[in-house]
Amino acid sequence: MNQVRQPIDVAVLGATGAVGQRFIQLLEGHPWFRVAEVIASDRSAGRRYGQAARWVLPGNPPQSVVEREVLPLDADVQSRIVFSALPGDIAKTVEWRLAEAGHVICSNASAYRMQPDVPILLPEANAEHAALVAEQRKKYGWGGGGLVTNSNCTTAPVVMALAPLRRFGIEAVQMVSMQAISGGGYPGVSALDITDNVIPFINGEEPKVEAEPRKMLGALDGDHIAMLDCVMSATCTRVPVLDGHLVAVSVRFAEDVSEDDLLAAWAGFAGRDPVPGLPSAPARPVEYRTEPDRPQPRRDRDAGNGMATVVGRLRPCPVIGGWKFLAMAHNTVRGAAGCSILNAELLLENGYV
Amino acid sequence: MNQVRQPIDVAVLGATGAVGQRFIQLLEGHPWFRVAEVIASDRSAGRRYGQAARWVLPGNPPQSVVEREVLPLDADVQSRIVFSALPGDIAKTVEWRLAEAGHVICSNASAYRMQPDVPILLPEANAEHAALVAEQRKKYGWGGGGLVTNSNCTTAPVVMALAPLRRFGIEAVQMVSMQAISGGGYPGVSALDITDNVIPFINGEEPKVEAEPRKMLGALDGDHIAMLDCVMSATCTRVPVLDGHLVAVSVRFAEDVSEDDLLAAWAGFAGRDPVPGLPSAPARPVEYRTEPDRPQPRRDRDAGNGMATVVGRLRPCPVIGGWKFLAMAHNTVRGAAGCSILNAELLLENGYV
Amino acid sequence: MNQVRQPIDVAVLGATGAVGQRFIQLLEGHPWFRVAEVIASDRSAGRRYGQAARWVLPGNPPQSVVEREVLPLDADVQSRIVFSALPGDIAKTVEWRLAEAGHVICSNASAYRMQPDVPILLPEANAEHAALVAEQRKKYGWGGGGLVTNSNCTTAPVVMALAPLRRFGIEAVQMVSMQAISGGGYPGVSALDITDNVIPFINGEEPKVEAEPRKMLGALDGDHIAMLDCVMSATCTRVPVLDGHLVAVSVRFAEDVSEDDLLAAWAGFAGRDPVPGLPSAPARPVEYRTEPDRPQPRRDRDAGNGMATVVGRLRPCPVIGGWKFLAMAHNTVRGAAGCSILNAELLLENGYV
Amino acid sequence: MNQVRQPIDVAVLGATGAVGQRFIQLLEGHPWFRVAEVIASDRSAGRRYGQAARWVLPGNPPQSVVEREVLPLDADVQSRIVFSALPGDIAKTVEWRLAEAGHVICSNASAYRMQPDVPILLPEANAEHAALVAEQRKKYGWGGGGLVTNSNCTTAPVVMALAPLRRFGIEAVQMVSMQAISGGGYPGVSALDITDNVIPFINGEEPKVEAEPRKMLGALDGDHIAMLDCVMSATCTRVPVLDGHLVAVSVRFAEDVSEDDLLAAWAGFAGRDPVPGLPSAPARPVEYRTEPDRPQPRRDRDAGNGMATVVGRLRPCPVIGGWKFLAMAHNTVRGAAGCSILNAELLLENGYV
Repeated sequence: MNQVRQPIDVAVLGATGAVGQRFIQLLEGHPWFRVAEVIASDRSAGRRYGQAARWVLPGNPPQSVVEREVLPLDADVQSRIVFSALPGDIAKTVEWRLAEAGHVICSNASAYRMQPDVPILLPEANAEHAALVAEQRKKYGWGGGGLVTNSNCTTAPVVMALAPLRRFGIEAVQMVSMQAISGGGYPGVSALDITDNVIPFINGEEPKVEAEPRKMLGALDGDHIAMLDCVMSATCTRVPVLDGHLVAVSVRFAEDVSEDDLLAAWAGFAGRDPVPGLPSAPARPVEYRTEPDRPQPRRDRDAGNGMATVVGRLRPCPVIGGWKFLAMAHNTVRGAAGCSILNAELLLENGYV
Repeated sequence: MNQVRQPIDVAVLGATGAVGQRFIQLLEGHPWFRVAEVIASDRSAGRRYGQAARWVLPGNPPQSVVEREVLPLDADVQSRIVFSALPGDIAKTVEWRLAEAGHVICSNASAYRMQPDVPILLPEANAEHAALVAEQRKKYGWGGGGLVTNSNCTTAPVVMALAPLRRFGIEAVQMVSMQAISGGGYPGVSALDITDNVIPFINGEEPKVEAEPRKMLGALDGDHIAMLDCVMSATCTRVPVLDGHLVAVSVRFAEDVSEDDLLAAWAGFAGRDPVPGLPSAPARPVEYRTEPDRPQPRRDRDAGNGMATVVGRLRPCPVIGGWKFLAMAHNTVRGAAGCSILNAELLLENGYV
Repeated sequence: MNQVRQPIDVAVLGATGAVGQRFIQLLEGHPWFRVAEVIASDRSAGRRYGQAARWVLPGNPPQSVVEREVLPLDADVQSRIVFSALPGDIAKTVEWRLAEAGHVICSNASAYRMQPDVPILLPEANAEHAALVAEQRKKYGWGGGGLVTNSNCTTAPVVMALAPLRRFGIEAVQMVSMQAISGGGYPGVSALDITDNVIPFINGEEPKVEAEPRKMLGALDGDHIAMLDCVMSATCTRVPVLDGHLVAVSVRFAEDVSEDDLLAAWAGFAGRDPVPGLPSAPARPVEYRTEPDRPQPRRDRDAGNGMATVVGRLRPCPVIGGWKFLAMAHNTVRGAAGCSILNAELLLENGYV
Repeated sequence: MNQVRQPIDVAVLGATGAVGQRFIQLLEGHPWFRVAEVIASDRSAGRRYGQAARWVLPGNPPQSVVEREVLPLDADVQSRIVFSALPGDIAKTVEWRLAEAGHVICSNASAYRMQPDVPILLPEANAEHAALVAEQRKKYGWGGGGLVTNSNCTTAPVVMALAPLRRFGIEAVQMVSMQAISGGGYPGVSALDITDNVIPFINGEEPKVEAEPRKMLGALDGDHIAMLDCVMSATCTRVPVLDGHLVAVSVRFAEDVSEDDLLAAWAGFAGRDPVPGLPSAPARPVEYRTEPDRPQPRRDRDAGNGMATVVGRLRPCPVIGGWKFLAMAHNTVRGAAGCSILNAELLLENGYV
């Protein structure tokens, strides 16, 4: 692995939006992929990317993409791998059509996440779920097509922190999130709402955060995932932070576990081969910090190039009868575009592309 | 009650700090009290208040106080009622000495909160605890002296929201707070720490938030409070908000309760006489908002002149086996100076002054 | 004046937007006016105000307006006085039609500000410009109709600070503004743009800020205003502040003036009768603060109930050959709704209604 | 140049503070320099750097420095090159002593900036001023010692933007700055002061910003710099931005210049050899952005690895009789540590080390 490959052309759907821009940024200089097609809604189609995208990330869009013409959503896509940053409703139609046409879709949209034969991949946690792509091909006659998703941006740090702890028998999880404004897209959250304020509600978020982890931590069972049998409860809030979702987690295990058990599980966690060797995989997917006041979104969101989940403040929770801690990850990198790219790397390495 | 009284002179200890300034601000124009003495550490003593206090609230310090000389901590205090915004360690010595000297201390400091014969008063919730002042006088031979505290600023909205629900048998409470920067005093939190960030730790806060509610919701038992038998777990964080502590609360009850039971309990809550008629008591101590995205610190912190606790988003919590909701109150008004003033009003009305 | 009047019915155009809400808030409990009609675009018309307006100010919309039905823009308006918070393009049509129909329009829109026979009123500075209403009636045969505007929200503090200095011969003014996000309306400025950032551009703002003061400080000359002969240069920026526009001003005078001259001019400034007695007029329209670090938006924007302009840091400017200082006013009160209400009070008192 | 050298040991004075940390961060992996000694006040001396420094930058201090023992201010320094992030008063004594002892001091402190024989180096603008080191050696008998400073963090973008325009005869400059909170050090600015606010004053800043550019843009005249004959006026404010000082600049030239003249001067600017080839020199020291709303601190502060000055919005200024624009640079990189490191590279390349 990691031998020199000829870069593979990829397409980005919804390339002009906030997550689309993050795809473009992260794919710049990627060792295996090269952005060959940028695709967006009619408003942008036909214009140069540099004109169509109001770039909201620091600096400038990569020079290699600025002059590229934005293609419409019904374009005849050439790239085998397609990244999708489309909104859920549009994603539903476009992604399926492209999978039928033989493309491998790595989607950040929520449209198909909970469909039993579509995996929500977080490679360190559940790389084996990628096998559902073979099932999809059988079931839908997709030829070389396939469809995988990544999780909601708040689910990501929770599942990453819990994945190494599955061996102790996860029974119940309570979560209170403090989510960054970039999770709302662009223009997204109004400054008049969030300045000097917390908004204790994000439309549609809590049901996702309560359901997705049970699927992601569940077992592959032939043509679907058997959901983990576990109770989950989430409260999702928005705070005045640019990037990085912080989650206060309490968890109860079937077994008696000690602080050392948990710390050792996190320290030794890296996912199974070939995941640790993939280009976007962080050296340490879960970084436990021992300072009393970490993780912090601004100071920890770039750990592992934004792909690590930073955990801290492990201590007993007498109410749940288990443990509590804080977990944080970069919501538009690990929680969105970066995870989709890692998913594509996994599929490529596993021979699905 | 509320008959025209001759205003009573009061003193403010720690008058130049952030909470001290809030005392000064809230006492301006108070119908029963008049700030006669402002007392602070040696650094400020001897100077005019307007010079000594770097005023951090909007506008200006009240004209009536600007020219007053700041007295030292060992001054011979004349006022019968003394409000204390001292830091915990200094409070320990100074407050006791003044209680011995016959003053009635209404303290915001944590020094004596957990002492069994000192009440943590939140009048709507536990006005009957004020009777401990009589016990103090007996036990310590204080004559007309007495010492009551108000709770930690995060405890306040939690206890206010839980007080009307005691009848259902509170068994377990889980709390995740998002606390305002004014809770850290002045200069307090560095802008380099909190801008675009959340700090998931506040030194010494969680033990207070887990212990104080059990005392405040406990029963008066002769010369002390019997702690409520209830399990509590808190995670305290700091967010980039100026004023208003927001807490995500989950609670389990001994009884089966419905959403309507809980809403009715909050709607009908006002505390017992004479509390609802006290000058600083809000018309509705608990305001339940039905919008999906409330309470919000900036938009709700001034409800009831900063003395109300605003609650919202009541829904079942399958993990705790009960209910979850969000509660919010102004941390330097209801959670500090405003509560101390209400406590003094109660003591005066009850004949302890 | 200020005798007990029967409250006069008023209408608010564009009542559901950010400035419209400020009108509603400031008119609640107004001694002379009563909101009888709330008018907005088709999207809101026919719904209850409480439903149609997503209230962005703290707390709740006034109870007296919540249940009122929102009328469409082509409604048959009954109120004699009409406040307008419409966007410029719609204002152009609607305001003129209503003036023709005999209503007195006090507009916050920019549509007619620079029309020679329409005054930009800032009563303390140029109450005499209200006489143009009589000219309008003559010229357009409007009967009892009339149309006055208030200035751009950034112009307001600049003109208020300069008005008392006209006697020294204002020759040149340089301005760099730091403007609050509420000036962009709702949803307005994206949190992704302004968090941890300054946006050094506000579309269309600088030409207004350079032109309006010359008209407002100009002399009434029969049926129009003669623009003040003065050079102006503005740079307008947006900063992460909720309310309150701060402007760094440099000014050159025809005469030699001393610091004392300027301070005395500000201290003695109140506008001519009947302005100081109007209900919304602040006691001190220009408050000079002597602290080295004022005015500050958050701490000074509520001075004079948001109607004062707070000035500070007067010192020589060797580049312009004059003086420099900072001026600040609340942009949605003094710079928008509050000024329109004061304008209506002036017109009523002057007999134009 | 840029040939492979053996890395040279350097020392950092004041290594634990906010600017000291930036030195440590920027020197990690530097091709020419290696941090061999970290020096700080008594409070930190004797502890491991990782313990002594409360790291305020994102992520962690470099592994290579974490275990290093912090040396006291009176340590027997071994490194030839010494970077200083000391506060002004301490810098005065310590820097001079070390220069006498034969060290080359590249200081960020203000203590010696305005001393006639000490250069304020901004290599692209005034590399020739480095020759004063030879004068210092003559005058003070310092052997191999020397002392150079970099400018105030707000001065840096102003001088960088003006340097290419010297040929047109700079006569007058007016500046209004919007400065980031990191400029105040750590803990520095209180969050209670700057949240939702602008502080229109920074103690001691304006005199520096008005004086330093005249020296930096002046001509080397034997053993001192002849100040540029130019009038300067500054207003300095603090805004809620983490990093990046933005300055609104107006400038009058002796000659008639066109927009094209100015744009061409900036586009062609790179400083004289050997500056463009130094490791820390940005490819384009002045980047002019053509978008209407740039430069923005958050989106532009990392241009050229934080070493570029980003300029935008060039347009005529009728008040000054010249041009106005906005300039922005990263205040702790280009405006502090990064510039000191570039200065050291220049001195090394010029043979002063």
